[in-house]
Amino acid sequence: MFSQTDFVHMERALALAKRGMYTTDPNPRVGCVLVKNGEVIGEGFTQPAGQDHAEIRAMKDARSRGHDLRGATAYVTLEPCSHFGRTPPCSNALIEAQVARVVAAMEDPNPQVSGRGLAVLRDAGIEVRCGLLANEAHELNIGFVSRMTRGRPWVRMKVAASLDGRTGLPSGISQWITGEAARADGHAWRARASAILTGIGTVREDDPRMTVRAVDTPRQPQRVLIDSQLEVSPQAQILAGAPTLIFCGNLEQRHSDRAQALRERGAEIVQLPNAAGKVDLPAMLKVLGERQVNELHVEAGYKLNGSLLREGCADELLVYVAPSLLGIDSMSMFNLGAPETLDGCVKLTFHNVERIGEDLRILARLLPAGTAAGGTDATAQPV
Amino acid sequence: MFSQTDFVHMERALALAKRGMYTTDPNPRVGCVLVKNGEVIGEGFTQPAGQDHAEIRAMKDARSRGHDLRGATAYVTLEPCSHFGRTPPCSNALIEAQVARVVAAMEDPNPQVSGRGLAVLRDAGIEVRCGLLANEAHELNIGFVSRMTRGRPWVRMKVAASLDGRTGLPSGISQWITGEAARADGHAWRARASAILTGIGTVREDDPRMTVRAVDTPRQPQRVLIDSQLEVSPQAQILAGAPTLIFCGNLEQRHSDRAQALRERGAEIVQLPNAAGKVDLPAMLKVLGERQVNELHVEAGYKLNGSLLREGCADELLVYVAPSLLGIDSMSMFNLGAPETLDGCVKLTFHNVERIGEDLRILARLLPAGTAAGGTDATAQPV
Repeated sequence: MFSQTDFVHMERALALAKRGMYTTDPNPRVGCVLVKNGEVIGEGFTQPAGQDHAEIRAMKDARSRGHDLRGATAYVTLEPCSHFGRTPPCSNALIEAQVARVVAAMEDPNPQVSGRGLAVLRDAGIEVRCGLLANEAHELNIGFVSRMTRGRPWVRMKVAASLDGRTGLPSGISQWITGEAARADGHAWRARASAILTGIGTVREDDPRMTVRAVDTPRQPQRVLIDSQLEVSPQAQILAGAPTLIFCGNLEQRHSDRAQALRERGAEIVQLPNAAGKVDLPAMLKVLGERQVNELHVEAGYKLNGSLLREGCADELLVYVAPSLLGIDSMSMFNLGAPETLDGCVKLTFHNVERIGEDLRILARLLPAGTAAGGTDATAQPV
Repeated sequence: MFSQTDFVHMERALALAKRGMYTTDPNPRVGCVLVKNGEVIGEGFTQPAGQDHAEIRAMKDARSRGHDLRGATAYVTLEPCSHFGRTPPCSNALIEAQVARVVAAMEDPNPQVSGRGLAVLRDAGIEVRCGLLANEAHELNIGFVSRMTRGRPWVRMKVAASLDGRTGLPSGISQWITGEAARADGHAWRARASAILTGIGTVREDDPRMTVRAVDTPRQPQRVLIDSQLEVSPQAQILAGAPTLIFCGNLEQRHSDRAQALRERGAEIVQLPNAAGKVDLPAMLKVLGERQVNELHVEAGYKLNGSLLREGCADELLVYVAPSLLGIDSMSMFNLGAPETLDGCVKLTFHNVERIGEDLRILARLLPAGTAAGGTDATAQPV
């Protein structure tokens, strides 16, 4: 169904899409390659929100180089949009340009519009193919897909630990377990996230800025703080610069002054208590989804990490493993109790492992609960 | 100094050497390729102790195929021996065969004989080159090198843990954290070891056989048990079959019956107490070195693992990491206390990482104490 040439051009479209890694948010990262008579005549990738999508960019590129688009093939890493958003629909533009063929890596993940852009193209007599390098395209927009299909961000939890699974000395000292290369790599993951989440414990201990510094990006992710009792100091570095979103739980009257002081520092405070009076984490993810957070990058301590895991609010672990042993008294990665049986443990799948400087970077994904080896979901059986 | 052709033939010699991985013990794994007029005329690798070394094997192979060895080049992964051991010296045989050139990957690691085999060849007018793919050759015989240069085995400590560094549930249940592929891989590492070491804690909890089963090998490694108070049951599976070597510490009179029962089960008991009355681990390594143990494979619990690490008796960690989280109450990998500062932690270097089935295998080597990043050893400075 797809030729070797199709693969080559879609690979190129994916490479273009990656150029928007830090900038397209909250839009998906999309790349587009226009090919005519075997020649690449235009290329583009999604510009910051409100500006051109990848297809429009590629068409402008082709025209600026004097090409006629009629009869061309468009390779796009995501189904062209068919609705008027901040920009007019790309499907229409492709139809007007009279391209002959559109090859898409994947459909729009939004179940409300999925397939509609391709249908519009087909109805206009354009040959449409979908599914080429779909996995790669999906990975690139894993957060956008999560928000569109689940109404919540893709939650990536970053941890730096020794080989024996410890994140810091008993005293709390944890700077620096991993090397400079790993820390810079961590900033690249921050940069691609829509928002960075931490907890009051980390703010109290390390007073982090939670900004992107080690990589060059024009966009700083939204900072999000979980602080049930609004204990953060108005002088905390996380409040400096852009406004920080603070989620809190049940507050008493005496907190109102504190809330006021934080608002004066530009913070926005969202009260979202669960039954225990702490922050309702699943509800928080829903709020962040509504606020168009695609990828949520978590850098927190073992308590909040544990709570997120226990409440099913983590999708993957980004673990930097340092070549060291810190011993049994040192701090653990996640505040999780032991399961009753080995089968009851938190199950992951290793997605990617790389050496970063002297350290290892392990990307592991949470398996849905109940995905025990060989297990079947009875509700999924035909009845 | 070395041509592309030299590399190709030495790669082949290394591949041949690996065929002796499970069988040459206590001799090193050596491979030999004989080349004449650009043609490989003979190949061989070291046979079980007392039988032919690689060079002899390759020469016999060449002669059986009707080749005259005069003027040939011999590629050997280790300097040919120059002494009468269980077999006559290979250097003499190469001289008698009138080969023209010998390329060795590395010198004999034994400082007493190192370079002598090459010197004998040179004195006979043979062109000699040494050092081609030396790292690879060294890795292949890391245990033999350790025994020759340090008088003690290379100690490889195997651990299976979850991503959060836990080896089993609080109840002690640890079967099975890792998958079948990782367990089979672990047996291949057992098979290449001269001896397998465990502790009384593991024997009491799991009653392991500590034999090689998942891979095909004609040789079972010597089993070694650390049991300070001779608490092992004479019915323990580790005592079944071949004799087990038991190291104990200070014994009281009442232990003599127990010792007798164990000896009747074929065990050999070596008393080697340290000041605390427990087994003197560094002294034990010396004893194992004297008994020609090249690679010592450790599969023990977190207590003995910790003791070996604390007493500088481990050289590398073979860690199988399972895609799971077992929680903070579960068992730790090594009974090590936290260091006072991050700089004081146990330092490693990641040597190799591979995915084995659903698990990861991390091979990490201990750095000598005091090898802090950027640190220098003052005693190594010229004075």
